Amino acid sequence: MRIALDAMGGDYAPATNVEGAIEALNEDSNLSVILVGDEKEIEAELKKQNCADLSIDIKHASQVVEMDDSPLTALRRKKDSSIRVAIDLVKAEKADAMVSAGNSGVVMATALLVLGKLPGVERPAIAAVMPSLKDHFVLIDAGANVDCKPLHLSQFAIMGEAYAKYIFDIESPRVGLLGIGEEDAKGNELTKESFKLIKDSNVNFIGNLDGKDMFNGEADVVVCDGFVGNIALKVSEGLAETIAKMLKREITDSATGKIGAVLLKNALNNFKKKTDYSEYGGAPLLGLSKPCIISHGRSSSKAIKNAVKVAGAFHSKGILDIISREFDKGLRRRETVAVEE
Amino acid sequence: MRIALDAMGGDYAPATNVEGAIEALNEDSNLSVILVGDEKEIEAELKKQNCADLSIDIKHASQVVEMDDSPLTALRRKKDSSIRVAIDLVKAEKADAMVSAGNSGVVMATALLVLGKLPGVERPAIAAVMPSLKDHFVLIDAGANVDCKPLHLSQFAIMGEAYAKYIFDIESPRVGLLGIGEEDAKGNELTKESFKLIKDSNVNFIGNLDGKDMFNGEADVVVCDGFVGNIALKVSEGLAETIAKMLKREITDSATGKIGAVLLKNALNNFKKKTDYSEYGGAPLLGLSKPCIISHGRSSSKAIKNAVKVAGAFHSKGILDIISREFDKGLRRRETVAVEE
Repeated sequence: MRIALDAMGGDYAPATNVEGAIEALNEDSNLSVILVGDEKEIEAELKKQNCADLSIDIKHASQVVEMDDSPLTALRRKKDSSIRVAIDLVKAEKADAMVSAGNSGVVMATALLVLGKLPGVERPAIAAVMPSLKDHFVLIDAGANVDCKPLHLSQFAIMGEAYAKYIFDIESPRVGLLGIGEEDAKGNELTKESFKLIKDSNVNFIGNLDGKDMFNGEADVVVCDGFVGNIALKVSEGLAETIAKMLKREITDSATGKIGAVLLKNALNNFKKKTDYSEYGGAPLLGLSKPCIISHGRSSSKAIKNAVKVAGAFHSKGILDIISREFDKGLRRRETVAVEE
Repeated sequence: MRIALDAMGGDYAPATNVEGAIEALNEDSNLSVILVGDEKEIEAELKKQNCADLSIDIKHASQVVEMDDSPLTALRRKKDSSIRVAIDLVKAEKADAMVSAGNSGVVMATALLVLGKLPGVERPAIAAVMPSLKDHFVLIDAGANVDCKPLHLSQFAIMGEAYAKYIFDIESPRVGLLGIGEEDAKGNELTKESFKLIKDSNVNFIGNLDGKDMFNGEADVVVCDGFVGNIALKVSEGLAETIAKMLKREITDSATGKIGAVLLKNALNNFKKKTDYSEYGGAPLLGLSKPCIISHGRSSSKAIKNAVKVAGAFHSKGILDIISREFDKGLRRRETVAVEE
């Protein structure tokens, strides 16, 4: 599989992006990577690495999208950005999937324009895999659509279920609607209307999911609008970091604590690994006609490596076809219900 | 100060409510508590306790509001509920403030109807105090208003700043708008419009606050609508519990980990105390004409104790007057700006 990687996106680009690509190639010999961005900068990074026998190409792009560029600005004035060129490679079938740790709004807008959506999909959404007390869950939409309508949320439910079915290998993932309280009638205007639509669809809907239950494994798929999803994701990330820092401070302040910490080292490392976002790599933009994977802006090389591997798996396992099929089933079920009524 | 405590609200009522009231009275001799609810049940709980010389009264209420009762149902059919009777006591000036760990939507609706709002306030909001890496912050609205307009959020900013000024004892609390990314132009329709209004008001506005920065102490006041606020609050709570459970499991799985945990005991206890929600007790409904304090549905006796103490302080320090004054100032500033434009 040929993955086009935006070498310029993310806080530590291009260095960590190049490192991540090499790590992915070392782990999976079926992959090849096209590094997209400033040719000279990329070459300089490659020279620092031992990668002569790996399947790496460079595709030059003269512009870089900044984090505060609006999608409109990027689409109009940065037609030779690393994001745009990477997506163009997928369009031209010179790459099977693309990965970017850059401005996710611009990736979304560009991919929509250049690649288009799967039939029937109103809005593609970011599906992020997160750790739970029991295992993992998919959060959809993790930030692509800040203003949503009930129809969008009901489609996120269908796409999220299809994705979870494949990646968690379970027959019937439990889909919950993120809200305030578990009662059916609770929520805001958006979630109350979305509740009815999801209930009428083909998904295994377990109803409203209170925020406090998001991490305890009650649902395999957590549905919300992109504004709420992004806040839930970022608040969780910030809190996990804060807890780690507070714990470290308490340990450092105590003499017996320091000895204790040495003895706890394995436990703490295991814990860190389970809650480390970079372990889960990239989040796909579900609903696009081709695989586009968003990676965290603060991506480490490990996060980039995992995002490239997710992109490879996305293509090789035909996840788009699965989603397309499930989406069609979900829609048909709803139409049937509508006619019966 | 006389506090009317809804003895029937919360998951462990009335036992923990009665215990919490007694703990508060033992710590603050200026307080007196009116326990509102089923007389027989309350008396049975009081008999278990050593409280003969404490200033406790009972006010019978024959009905209990359930967590899934809608505000409308409660207002129409439960006119003798413990929530309603407690609020009526405040209205009749037989109590100075009320506390409930029950259905917060019903408390809000009943208080609005019976007590009314401060002049100029469109919507009262829940102001929850939460721990940050540096100290604490106020999250407003933590769940009272699930569908908001920009004007509401701008008023939450003013009330939250006034409250933070008093409780944190700082001259100019930093007010942030919870959103996705720090750039001024980022957000959904609601926050983009709210941004402009808050910027034009009298508050010390530091702009958009990304979810990941909520806990790192960048803002003293975090403004959002009640749906987003409730999710941010509950997701944080759920995640903190999940992290604690995961950590415990890792420690228990390792022999050296167990020894380490013994040595870490003090550090872990300090940490637990700093992140324990019950330490911060109740959250006031800011903008009402009288003090009403909401406590967590899962309140322990310590949480109830702290909520009763917050209610006492709210009354004794004249926080309502402070908010009223600041609110007036904030509004005047905005009107001036509007004229200048």
